Amino acid sequence: MHDLTAKVQSAVKKSKVTTGFAHVFAVGSTAGIGAIEFEPGLKKDLPEVLSKLIPPGRQYGHEQTWHDGNAHSHLQATLLGPDLTIPIRDSELVAGTWQQVVHVDFDNRPRQRQVIVTVYGE
Amino acid sequence: MHDLTAKVQSAVKKSKVTTGFAHVFAVGSTAGIGAIEFEPGLKKDLPEVLSKLIPPGRQYGHEQTWHDGNAHSHLQATLLGPDLTIPIRDSELVAGTWQQVVHVDFDNRPRQRQVIVTVYGE
Amino acid sequence: MHDLTAKVQSAVKKSKVTTGFAHVFAVGSTAGIGAIEFEPGLKKDLPEVLSKLIPPGRQYGHEQTWHDGNAHSHLQATLLGPDLTIPIRDSELVAGTWQQVVHVDFDNRPRQRQVIVTVYGE
Repeated sequence: MHDLTAKVQSAVKKSKVTTGFAHVFAVGSTAGIGAIEFEPGLKKDLPEVLSKLIPPGRQYGHEQTWHDGNAHSHLQATLLGPDLTIPIRDSELVAGTWQQVVHVDFDNRPRQRQVIVTVYGE
Repeated sequence: MHDLTAKVQSAVKKSKVTTGFAHVFAVGSTAGIGAIEFEPGLKKDLPEVLSKLIPPGRQYGHEQTWHDGNAHSHLQATLLGPDLTIPIRDSELVAGTWQQVVHVDFDNRPRQRQVIVTVYGE
Repeated sequence: MHDLTAKVQSAVKKSKVTTGFAHVFAVGSTAGIGAIEFEPGLKKDLPEVLSKLIPPGRQYGHEQTWHDGNAHSHLQATLLGPDLTIPIRDSELVAGTWQQVVHVDFDNRPRQRQVIVTVYGE
């Protein structure tokens, strides 16, 4: 799990947008974007909770075709979702002090990842 | 759980936007925004279902650091997500008759909450 | 589950927007929009996983009022969410090769469904 907040805030600053929103999108079907307090406890808890809800295993239809061991990664990513939109006011992201924008990689092998940030407004 | 639909619709009217969308964002890491039929049954069911999936407890990493009893609140909020975007056509939100925009507070103590509505379009 | 990707891409082309985003919204409280690899395995897995997390049944408050057997449909739809926003660059949706935009109908009877696509940008 990676904290993207500073990078998104930096894109907001560069854009000169004062009122609007920033849209963050994880390219790829085994990663997602979430809002969470970025601290070591929750950084461990979120993947654990999702793996309890949707455990790794061979029981998935996806595995029977692809045998790559990451059906749960796809399903966890869909449940979290790939996108998040955060409002901008006075050239700043308006989010809680303990509310960070994070990228969560659910895959079972290291991947190079792309995240697209779009800033929109006036 | 609070129904925000009338307030969002009112922001749409004030904005004079006829075609576009309204973005609703819950500030804070223990609340979320969802779309659901706002009726007493589901108002009870949604928090119950989320507390069954992610129960309160001391087993979370977050608890071991912060001991504030709301790790499940953070995780439930992340799963629901803090944002929702609804299309606007003919100056009206386009959502189902039984599809309301709701704020759900997952925290274990009363909180003052801020919700940001951004209307965008033409 | 239906793959909407080609239809959304077609709306992007028609709009002449080169940089911006496409917003996809499922009207109605028992359907949702998700991002997933659209292949037969996951097409079966996603509804199964959600029905394991939130099973059909008579235990819901919604059922005690409405008796229409679809409380779980409402709750599954809320968990997946009704909306998704995908970035546009060079007049194309920027999503992974295996990352499709899908409409998932959770209801227990056939429904006519409406999906609203809004393309925004420059």
